[in-house]
Amino acid sequence: MSATTFFTSVHEQLQYIEQRMREQADGEQHPDLKSALEHLLSAGGKRIRPTLGLLVGNMLGAPEEKLITLGASVELLHTATLVHDDLIDGALLRRGIPTLNARWSPAATVLTGDFLFARAAKLAAETDYLPLMKLFAETLATIVNGELTQMFSARGVIDRDNYYNRIYAKTASLFEMSSLAASMVATEDEDTRAAMKAFGYEVGMAFQIVDDILDFTGDQSTVGKPIGSDLLNGLVTLPAIYYAEAHRCDDDIRSLPEGGWKDTQRVQRLVDAIRLSNATEQALDEAQQAVGRALSALETMPASSEKGALENLAKFIVDRNL
Amino acid sequence: MSATTFFTSVHEQLQYIEQRMREQADGEQHPDLKSALEHLLSAGGKRIRPTLGLLVGNMLGAPEEKLITLGASVELLHTATLVHDDLIDGALLRRGIPTLNARWSPAATVLTGDFLFARAAKLAAETDYLPLMKLFAETLATIVNGELTQMFSARGVIDRDNYYNRIYAKTASLFEMSSLAASMVATEDEDTRAAMKAFGYEVGMAFQIVDDILDFTGDQSTVGKPIGSDLLNGLVTLPAIYYAEAHRCDDDIRSLPEGGWKDTQRVQRLVDAIRLSNATEQALDEAQQAVGRALSALETMPASSEKGALENLAKFIVDRNL
Repeated sequence: MSATTFFTSVHEQLQYIEQRMREQADGEQHPDLKSALEHLLSAGGKRIRPTLGLLVGNMLGAPEEKLITLGASVELLHTATLVHDDLIDGALLRRGIPTLNARWSPAATVLTGDFLFARAAKLAAETDYLPLMKLFAETLATIVNGELTQMFSARGVIDRDNYYNRIYAKTASLFEMSSLAASMVATEDEDTRAAMKAFGYEVGMAFQIVDDILDFTGDQSTVGKPIGSDLLNGLVTLPAIYYAEAHRCDDDIRSLPEGGWKDTQRVQRLVDAIRLSNATEQALDEAQQAVGRALSALETMPASSEKGALENLAKFIVDRNL
Repeated sequence: MSATTFFTSVHEQLQYIEQRMREQADGEQHPDLKSALEHLLSAGGKRIRPTLGLLVGNMLGAPEEKLITLGASVELLHTATLVHDDLIDGALLRRGIPTLNARWSPAATVLTGDFLFARAAKLAAETDYLPLMKLFAETLATIVNGELTQMFSARGVIDRDNYYNRIYAKTASLFEMSSLAASMVATEDEDTRAAMKAFGYEVGMAFQIVDDILDFTGDQSTVGKPIGSDLLNGLVTLPAIYYAEAHRCDDDIRSLPEGGWKDTQRVQRLVDAIRLSNATEQALDEAQQAVGRALSALETMPASSEKGALENLAKFIVDRNL
């Protein structure tokens, strides 16, 4: 499936969002900040979160101006969390492009992240809709709490609930916000809002599960980091959980919570075993089920080109690079 | 003048704000985060920003619940900026107590600051009043922009406008927000709101000018950092500006923008000269003028015990430790 099938219809609106994001450094007397924002935005990414919001909003007849503002707010919030994340992880590359902290001091990186948070909050406020501001504040809290949980949790823990909570905080919460927020500026109807919230949630969960599968099956050059890097960092994702559940007596598995994840040779052996097993297929099946639930949530919507595009977006989530 | 004259009347409400701030880590599964928040809040400070908001709100008859929420939001926002500031400056002590980054990793410190931002935003949203959320977002943007300006600006620059902009962003903006926000939940009357905004602004500007004077005249043990530390960091504050204006041909002054601020001996000599000159008195006179304007802004308010307390608060700003 080609991404063009759903990106095309919002191509022009995405350009406006891009412009809206770039404008955020206008009027600042910091050429460095401008160039940092430029660097971050040109690093790109698929803008999947704003695309989701635009398609939902267009389907429901939301005012375009609010959708642009929302999309810019969501994507800046996402960018802000990436900036602080990369600093925390000491990551030097993201999507093959140097991170901000690879080029800047930690101090400048912290403040640039804070600047993006501030601008995202300001854009959310510009929608002039209080429930949206509350949603923004809650989502920010969810994301940061998730990062704190990840930082303070023991490593190598094999726990489904822990995993689902983590990927909700890390990814699905912002997909959910993007989809729900777009419906909120379009309609007061609670059923429609609940359906769009569910759609965003399920698509977001599927998106992160697929990301976690790609960490095992992907090509290092495409994924942009070493194969199995999650496990090498002590993060047990869904493919590893499936493998662990099927190999409870495996020494490598049993060693994980006791610090076995620090043993590179052991982890490499586990990564190979997981790749050869059907664990990644089981994880993919779970992502597909989430997409199925996302499509069900859409069912009550009347037929439209945007509805079709949203269906394609949901399917694309599991098909990309697999 | 004793601080008790205006703190007493809001003592109980301040306890509620304290409790509201501490609650922010409840329900989190991170004992470390809880202890970090505890550490930050027990480090104390005078809670001058929430006190200002409470007195203004009480004077205007604002609902207490909203004032508590607002006060907690303002103080958490203030705390969040201190956490990131200390990390950026590599400060190990604040008010004589170890900073978070003295005990924690930079990663945990960044995230704890983010957590406090998120909670401050959530509390602001709980006031259920959109203009307040906008004010919150704008103030956050002002503070962060100020920090960025300070980071990217050349050091040793002797410039009044630069100085006023810096202390507005750093301090007066949050005093202004605290006072204005308290009036916003009390009254729709634009004149009253403008008066309270002006009051907060002037008091905040005076507060920072006095802080900057104390950096020259204070006792190292009270101020908690070496005398003249601003100038040693290339920050030219109001006393130094007055001195510079009166000694344009002084070699030490002329050297500042050219990197002379890096020469510890030179700066030490300048600090001594400034202490012996009438520059700190001139700066204090300016702070007193700001307090005078703050008192004028209060004049139209009907007499009340809170009005009296606000007058005392404004006067206390310039009297403390001098």
